[in-house]
Amino acid sequence: MIRPPTSRDEAVLLDQSDPLADRRELFDLPEGVTYLVGHSLGPPPKSARERLTAAQQDWAADLVRSWNSAGWIDLAERTGDRIAALIGAQPGEVIVADSVSVNLFKLAAAALPQARTYALFVEEDEFPTDQYIAAGLGDLSGAEVRQLAPGGSFKALKAGGVVIKSAVNYRSSEVADIAAHEREAKQHGALIVWDLSHATGVLDLKLSVDGAALAAGCTYKYLNGGPGAPAFAYVSHSLAPKLSNPLPGWMGHAAPFAFDTNYAPRDGVARFASGTPPILSLAALGGALAAMEGVDLGQLEAKAKGLGALAIARAQAMGLEVLSPVEDARRGGHVSIRIAEGYPVVQALAARGVMADFRAPDTVRFGFSPLFLSYQAVWDAMATLSGILESGSWDQPQFHARAKVT
Amino acid sequence: MIRPPTSRDEAVLLDQSDPLADRRELFDLPEGVTYLVGHSLGPPPKSARERLTAAQQDWAADLVRSWNSAGWIDLAERTGDRIAALIGAQPGEVIVADSVSVNLFKLAAAALPQARTYALFVEEDEFPTDQYIAAGLGDLSGAEVRQLAPGGSFKALKAGGVVIKSAVNYRSSEVADIAAHEREAKQHGALIVWDLSHATGVLDLKLSVDGAALAAGCTYKYLNGGPGAPAFAYVSHSLAPKLSNPLPGWMGHAAPFAFDTNYAPRDGVARFASGTPPILSLAALGGALAAMEGVDLGQLEAKAKGLGALAIARAQAMGLEVLSPVEDARRGGHVSIRIAEGYPVVQALAARGVMADFRAPDTVRFGFSPLFLSYQAVWDAMATLSGILESGSWDQPQFHARAKVT
Repeated sequence: MIRPPTSRDEAVLLDQSDPLADRRELFDLPEGVTYLVGHSLGPPPKSARERLTAAQQDWAADLVRSWNSAGWIDLAERTGDRIAALIGAQPGEVIVADSVSVNLFKLAAAALPQARTYALFVEEDEFPTDQYIAAGLGDLSGAEVRQLAPGGSFKALKAGGVVIKSAVNYRSSEVADIAAHEREAKQHGALIVWDLSHATGVLDLKLSVDGAALAAGCTYKYLNGGPGAPAFAYVSHSLAPKLSNPLPGWMGHAAPFAFDTNYAPRDGVARFASGTPPILSLAALGGALAAMEGVDLGQLEAKAKGLGALAIARAQAMGLEVLSPVEDARRGGHVSIRIAEGYPVVQALAARGVMADFRAPDTVRFGFSPLFLSYQAVWDAMATLSGILESGSWDQPQFHARAKVT
Repeated sequence: MIRPPTSRDEAVLLDQSDPLADRRELFDLPEGVTYLVGHSLGPPPKSARERLTAAQQDWAADLVRSWNSAGWIDLAERTGDRIAALIGAQPGEVIVADSVSVNLFKLAAAALPQARTYALFVEEDEFPTDQYIAAGLGDLSGAEVRQLAPGGSFKALKAGGVVIKSAVNYRSSEVADIAAHEREAKQHGALIVWDLSHATGVLDLKLSVDGAALAAGCTYKYLNGGPGAPAFAYVSHSLAPKLSNPLPGWMGHAAPFAFDTNYAPRDGVARFASGTPPILSLAALGGALAAMEGVDLGQLEAKAKGLGALAIARAQAMGLEVLSPVEDARRGGHVSIRIAEGYPVVQALAARGVMADFRAPDTVRFGFSPLFLSYQAVWDAMATLSGILESGSWDQPQFHARAKVT
């Protein structure tokens, strides 16, 4: 792990030896902005715009023939294979489809008949969608749904049901030990659907090595795929043949253009495709992934942790309470800090070119996307925060005014 | 209804009085192509490209703040309201979300507890996805699934279950009588989920007047929203409050940014939102709808029927068997014609600038999008078909070569 710099000069030195430093120029970022919200929506890679332009040209020139000529028909699978390489999975184990919500539903529903117990478990501090989806699936399927105390998943695996669990908690940034959970799950006939939304593109995930069987994840955070970019689903090669997609659509059929009355699933995770994927958004995602091409995932995680450790050290020096684990190994790519007047402070930061996000009642989240951030920028951002807090300059009417949603 | 022209001169005259003639210039269409596949994938309206460019600029300039500043947060609802106006529904009754497959699943699942009988019915010649989704939902929910003979839906309503039924059959183009089905459904406690994929943007649909309660539809056919553009869901104001979304996501929550542990649905159809919508594809769709703005839907349907009647008359003059209803009122926007050597004939047509599509074993479909086609173009296209059939020029090796998928 990287020791965080203790001065601005040290930060500058770290940037000079940063193997990812030249990735920043792959992004379109506004001048004078330090963007610490890549954990919510990544900025546009230039390659995303290029692929989107090409897809529009294909649409205009070749029209419906582009399904063949431009390769749209298997774009979701090919893009999935590229994501597989970023999460330690094999080709054919990942498909891009739908949203995280819909994929969690499909995978959890498919897992239920394979688990020892027909029941669903979710911790009560999981991302809300994960909880709502479990409740909706429980109502429809008759599966029992049990809400767990925070951190209760590991113990709950003994019950042998299906657990929906984030690899990185959206609020605290706490990292789950995937390998340990999977070992426990196998002992008790449980299955885990991992939500990789806050982990993909920032941690050196090793799903195959860790024995993970099922996962869904988001592509618009650290993968920078664009607002609402389609999500992905992962199913291990060994489990896939046993699973049925509860939302079987024509795109998951072995021969989609045969228009069979009866469903025959494709091999592998591709059976979890449902309807036609949104090609324009998918093309942008495919382009965005070029910014990740050839990145050493160990270096990626090390830099994210290094930037986070720097922010934590500076926050502690300001006397702020850090809500995320301070130990690098237990923390994802973002850091949550308690700031009582978080809302106006975040607005005051934005007015000075530092973007962070606020979660009620008093949490400010800083995201450390390793591809476009530098140690120097994070050092300066924390200095800006310190200046705002010391001067009280956050307490101006315009910083308290709320937008329609936050 | 418009009497089809019996000569090329008459076709030219009809074009001169066509109230929709000036809409063609709103589209990017390749020179020299007569595009008769708008029932599969509509061509790009110029306004789609403009909105997509604007959405990319918002992403780059305002980053995550665009959820507020660019209005992404309620774009799915606002776009839904514009589609509502095209299907005879009220504002707040349509939301853009997911794919047709996923929306059919959500609506049918939500309808099951409201119907007199916990069972699903689908005709065996419905679009395959509709059948697969019914089967998948049946497996998960325990609802009985009964496959009906073609045209069997009306009779099946007596059983009081949930029927999934296309307003226009994807193959035959046969139109269903929505009002009559809904009257029958109400008598027997049945509910119908209409699949409007081949009807939206080409028929003068009147969902409210006809008493329809539930529908899903596609936006990339006659609405020209782009490849895989997100689909829509319709729920009548009277039924919506009684329904639960089986895939409740944070975007369907009454306060998505409160991050509540418990789900509280939004009012109306918005509760059927699940995950984050693909904003780039959604922006393109929003732009595309500008090409429909201000169109008189009666004129739209009349022109589609007029073009179809022209094609039917010419096909009959060639001695071809028309598989679609010849009566205008019973037919949607496309016409299916039996051509034994349909595959090479369609390739030979394409080589002469006329695009149609082929469905095995022997069906050629011609789609009559009223916004960008003219009577003259359809007249000439049918003359091209006649020339190919008379000369036997379709029987060349290059026209038999199959692409990877068709």
